[in-house]
Amino acid sequence: MSVTAPAGFSATGASVGIKASGVPDAALVVSARPAVAAAVFTQNKAPAAPVQTSRAHLATTGSVVSAVLLTSGNANAATGDAGLAACSALCGDVATTIGRPSDEVLICQTGLIGIPFPIDAARPGVSTLAATLGHDEAAAHRAATAIMTTDTFAKEVVVERDGVTVGGMAKGAAMLAPDMATMLCVLTTDAVTDPTTLQRALSAAVAPSFNSMDVDGATSTNDTVIVLANGSGVEASESLLTELLTEACMKLAEDMVTDAEGATKAVRITVTGAASDAEAHAGARKVANSQLVKCSLNGEDPYWGRVLSDIATARIEMDPSTTTIAYGGITVSAGGVGVDHDAAAVAAHMAERWNWISIDLGLGPGTASILTTDLGYGYIDENRTTS
Amino acid sequence: MSVTAPAGFSATGASVGIKASGVPDAALVVSARPAVAAAVFTQNKAPAAPVQTSRAHLATTGSVVSAVLLTSGNANAATGDAGLAACSALCGDVATTIGRPSDEVLICQTGLIGIPFPIDAARPGVSTLAATLGHDEAAAHRAATAIMTTDTFAKEVVVERDGVTVGGMAKGAAMLAPDMATMLCVLTTDAVTDPTTLQRALSAAVAPSFNSMDVDGATSTNDTVIVLANGSGVEASESLLTELLTEACMKLAEDMVTDAEGATKAVRITVTGAASDAEAHAGARKVANSQLVKCSLNGEDPYWGRVLSDIATARIEMDPSTTTIAYGGITVSAGGVGVDHDAAAVAAHMAERWNWISIDLGLGPGTASILTTDLGYGYIDENRTTS
Repeated sequence: MSVTAPAGFSATGASVGIKASGVPDAALVVSARPAVAAAVFTQNKAPAAPVQTSRAHLATTGSVVSAVLLTSGNANAATGDAGLAACSALCGDVATTIGRPSDEVLICQTGLIGIPFPIDAARPGVSTLAATLGHDEAAAHRAATAIMTTDTFAKEVVVERDGVTVGGMAKGAAMLAPDMATMLCVLTTDAVTDPTTLQRALSAAVAPSFNSMDVDGATSTNDTVIVLANGSGVEASESLLTELLTEACMKLAEDMVTDAEGATKAVRITVTGAASDAEAHAGARKVANSQLVKCSLNGEDPYWGRVLSDIATARIEMDPSTTTIAYGGITVSAGGVGVDHDAAAVAAHMAERWNWISIDLGLGPGTASILTTDLGYGYIDENRTTS
Repeated sequence: MSVTAPAGFSATGASVGIKASGVPDAALVVSARPAVAAAVFTQNKAPAAPVQTSRAHLATTGSVVSAVLLTSGNANAATGDAGLAACSALCGDVATTIGRPSDEVLICQTGLIGIPFPIDAARPGVSTLAATLGHDEAAAHRAATAIMTTDTFAKEVVVERDGVTVGGMAKGAAMLAPDMATMLCVLTTDAVTDPTTLQRALSAAVAPSFNSMDVDGATSTNDTVIVLANGSGVEASESLLTELLTEACMKLAEDMVTDAEGATKAVRITVTGAASDAEAHAGARKVANSQLVKCSLNGEDPYWGRVLSDIATARIEMDPSTTTIAYGGITVSAGGVGVDHDAAAVAAHMAERWNWISIDLGLGPGTASILTTDLGYGYIDENRTTS
């Protein structure tokens, strides 16, 4: 069900002519009653037109949102005033069809950067999107499918507890990095809450999930996570909301890493024993961002020397003599040197789709995990050219 | 001539049995009279045994050095006390053969990390290295060849001005990154100088050369640049020394990037108009370190949108509306959007071995360049496995 699981939400997806191939490229999520919203946007200093537009709309309405339009196939980034005008037109078209003010429509877009958005081609299709809105699983799946770019499967989630439901959908692919990936995510909930609480819960949910993925160190121009709470259900405490949103975001983040562009491995890098959580995070990110480590994961080679060398340049407190490194829980290095270990067990672990490298610095209580991928031919094939 | 070009230096290279293949794997550079030395070492917090040893020797002697031993095929990193003992033994063997104290011998090693150093195999060969020392070009070339790992050509340089000669040799390959690459470099000069002046000149020379390369963001456990000034020539001013050392280091750095592991392109990323030189450097490094930009260089695709997106996440002052991006001097984007340009001329530039991306931020006087490479199958082939 994903985004239509909480009461009062409908969704759809269709082809509106942005992608020349004719595959679905636009999705719409609508709340039957204006919802309270919260959002986390990219920190990129060249944010795409849809990011600028959605930020402005949230500010104007005080975070009241009735619909989110998502398109794929063109990022509408580095497109100047024409890009902003396109966003205005599209939000206006959706607003007209659902009978709400234009400012209550948010917009997310993903695709190539720096190419003029084909607004004339897209408007007729966007204007008729609302006609196919549905509350069922098929409608939600149409929406999740229409936002895919190089994703190979739709990413959907539903979590429920204590009478509160959270649904979500996302698209990932490459550029999964510092402070969000090239990713879009829309979450819905029937919880009764207020914008401030919802924003705190969303920010807390994004930190260990989308902000702890790193496929290639790139932060996109378009990254957006939006949650709509339409209050058709019961009141939710901040802690319950945070829990549910975190669960939903973690599941979608794991799906994204599993499906990252051209990757053959999904990898969790865990650092423990750091001086602080922040230092653990920096160390895990440095290892996750290492092309050398990522190549060795592609080759299923437990080259722990690179892991040690990388964490030793993370500009965090560390000492090789207190550092332990394990693959799949099997210690391969301790005190800065290799140790005897069951090589067959390590090889069996590395042959799996999910790999796990854990690094204990033996210094303090700090801990963090980063999700990443290997680096192989597939990534290069996807990213050599835009054509 | 490289390292033997300044008077009073001899060199050699030979196979001492570290590399199973039997190719040359040890080099020796000797000064006929004890020389004044300066060095720049890796900032890695897990420095290899040879780095720890050389640092200690420089401290003990007050930077007086008679010889530098360099070996390839095993980094002697993450090898614990046994690694340090191996360095002691090798320096002692060289000291004996040249009749100088052990502390006057420095050691540099390169190769795989975390594998016990084959000290018993290497000692006999190291003990007889001095017998083949020579002052001619062939001897210098033997030394430069013996330190190669995945390098495809020996990297040598000689510069002369105002009666002062500087010679140098280096090895590079992958892991060319923040604050030096996996690289070793030995420079020699006949200049009369003192350790403090020499250290300042070397540090100034390393900043725009070895510390402005970034192939894959990795900083090795073994990076070392050493200069020996044996005073057999004339007195050199600090500015002359800095000039000569900078020229030599720049030439060797360009050779390294040209020959980086598996690369098909050598690329200069220049940032101008930044708020400061430091911000320009951070911006250029962020772009140089972008897997997405590097893949597009491999595909000869002028995807400036990625360049803009990357520099916009470099955590420096920037504004897309004042930013201009050019490939090979041909402007492809200005004010955050694409501009009409001669696409055939850009394509012709990108087909060359050397590419040049320049980014003007239009904000201030800050400028910096970083040398980097593309990212393609070759890098992955070199780095998937250690075997």
